[in-house]
Amino acid sequence: MTPPVTGAASIAVAPLAVSLGDPSGIAPEVIAEAWARRGDSALAPFFLVGGASVLRAAAASRGIDLPVSPISSPDEARVVFETALPVLGDEDCAPSPGEPTLDGARLALHSLTRAVELTVSGEASAIVTGPIAKSKLAQAGFAQPGQTEFLADACGLPHADAVMMLAGPSLRTVPLTVHEPLSAVPGLVTRELIERKARIVALALARDFGLSAPRIAITGLNPHAGEDGRMGREELEVIAPAIAALRSEGLAVTGPHAADALFAAHERSGYDVALCMYHDQALIPIKTLDFDQGVNVTLGLPIVRTSPDHGTAFAIAGKGKASAGAMIAAIRMASQCAAARAA
Amino acid sequence: MTPPVTGAASIAVAPLAVSLGDPSGIAPEVIAEAWARRGDSALAPFFLVGGASVLRAAAASRGIDLPVSPISSPDEARVVFETALPVLGDEDCAPSPGEPTLDGARLALHSLTRAVELTVSGEASAIVTGPIAKSKLAQAGFAQPGQTEFLADACGLPHADAVMMLAGPSLRTVPLTVHEPLSAVPGLVTRELIERKARIVALALARDFGLSAPRIAITGLNPHAGEDGRMGREELEVIAPAIAALRSEGLAVTGPHAADALFAAHERSGYDVALCMYHDQALIPIKTLDFDQGVNVTLGLPIVRTSPDHGTAFAIAGKGKASAGAMIAAIRMASQCAAARAA
Repeated sequence: MTPPVTGAASIAVAPLAVSLGDPSGIAPEVIAEAWARRGDSALAPFFLVGGASVLRAAAASRGIDLPVSPISSPDEARVVFETALPVLGDEDCAPSPGEPTLDGARLALHSLTRAVELTVSGEASAIVTGPIAKSKLAQAGFAQPGQTEFLADACGLPHADAVMMLAGPSLRTVPLTVHEPLSAVPGLVTRELIERKARIVALALARDFGLSAPRIAITGLNPHAGEDGRMGREELEVIAPAIAALRSEGLAVTGPHAADALFAAHERSGYDVALCMYHDQALIPIKTLDFDQGVNVTLGLPIVRTSPDHGTAFAIAGKGKASAGAMIAAIRMASQCAAARAA
Repeated sequence: MTPPVTGAASIAVAPLAVSLGDPSGIAPEVIAEAWARRGDSALAPFFLVGGASVLRAAAASRGIDLPVSPISSPDEARVVFETALPVLGDEDCAPSPGEPTLDGARLALHSLTRAVELTVSGEASAIVTGPIAKSKLAQAGFAQPGQTEFLADACGLPHADAVMMLAGPSLRTVPLTVHEPLSAVPGLVTRELIERKARIVALALARDFGLSAPRIAITGLNPHAGEDGRMGREELEVIAPAIAALRSEGLAVTGPHAADALFAAHERSGYDVALCMYHDQALIPIKTLDFDQGVNVTLGLPIVRTSPDHGTAFAIAGKGKASAGAMIAAIRMASQCAAARAA
């Protein structure tokens, strides 16, 4: 018999690694519910790193019958998954829904670190990260501004090459600049950054989403995309030249589009992804349309990473109110992207 | 018998004045269709100022049977309206759909000017303005940046006191700053401007929309409303103090809210209007949700003014593609606001 090879085919069938996120947030309960709905939602096998007792408590608070099965290596997850939620490792903490603790932050950091390692090594086919509280995690030694940057570091890439995309049933958007004060945005919108991110987006949509020639709509920075320079000149001086350069490389890029009209239903069929100039321009439309099903996908990494597009939501943790829709969508998208890479 | 008094009650039953907008845009055809659907849409009587032959041509291009009836004063409109579209005055131009002309711009400016006069005098109960092409109208002598400023001048008010609100079936939003380059926005967001516009919004929603204590949600300027100063300080230094001052006056104001999540379905029931910091923050959600039914309402004027929230759309004029939904919604909202003022 031929021994199994470590390559695309075997990576694709490896289970997904899920990191716990902050154990006092809503991640444990939505992970529990995702497992409970694994059949209806046709979810591929996944395992959680650490936090077995947190998961049990979260499941109980939602009335979910959740058998937890300890595993010692990812390859045990597939067999276990049908009957129990596989949890790798015995790191844990006392359940404290809604009240973040330092112990919880340490557990979140451990879970993230280990889940990334297992995905980089190929033992997991992709990573789905639960939401963290950055300020709390910093106390536990987390040095990056967010999980996306943590992943870039783990993969040895510059932060700018790990590109955040928000994806929902209606729309995909990418913010060119992310967590920047609005006053800093105009200075950060450069031709180089637009071209670099658009190329990463084009390659990733081909590799991970099966779109061989993805159509990228690029927004303007100013109202009405500047209206021929009457309301700002960045479109004429920066964005349009970047678009021309990208088109000359053969990419299916259009714009600069007036952002206010670009997300209307009849416009959305005209592109596969919108590359927006700043945070709210990209996140308002996706959260307005797809709040409970938004997925944050990191493009440009050697590994597949998704995350539900919501925060820890400490205020509703443990109260049975949090929707598991985004977590389920994130798990499903992670396995689809991993399968697309392996195909 | 007591002679009729000129006051609230008689103003409320006066017909609505509709200005033609640019006759080469889509306004004539959507006005024609609004008249044709006056029964289904329960529209109050309105009359158009000028452009009879443009209306006839636009109606014919959409296959609408449109009798046009010349009137010499607004009070004739009510009788005529059931059987024909009343057109006041014989100013006209040659139909030229999709190809704006100087003659057309002159007609648009005449129609707007006269419709405003009739509304200010009380002969019309409100004005509904068709969309114009500003650069074209400027050649005909139009000196203002837009119709809203033209109306402020006609009413003797500072431009900043004529406040644009976008209203659709799902949402109402007000941009604090409007047609400004994004780089100018942070400097324009002042405590004084927020307080002034919020007060105008509160008064207008009470007077024109029957909301006696309107709930106003105010957004932040920066991502996540600045996250306690980590992504910009305008929320701490400008927006929050303005909100505190407004609340101390008894207004039902909340915020600063993170703009990305504020327009999700489950958030929208928490406020009557969102006061946003800049153009795209206010217009992206409304156009994303209510593209074909968005109405632009000018708050703070002594007269009622609405407009469909779309432009001239020269590219599709005369092709039978333009939706009349926003024009119908604008006409309906104008009569509702006029009735609320008269009540």
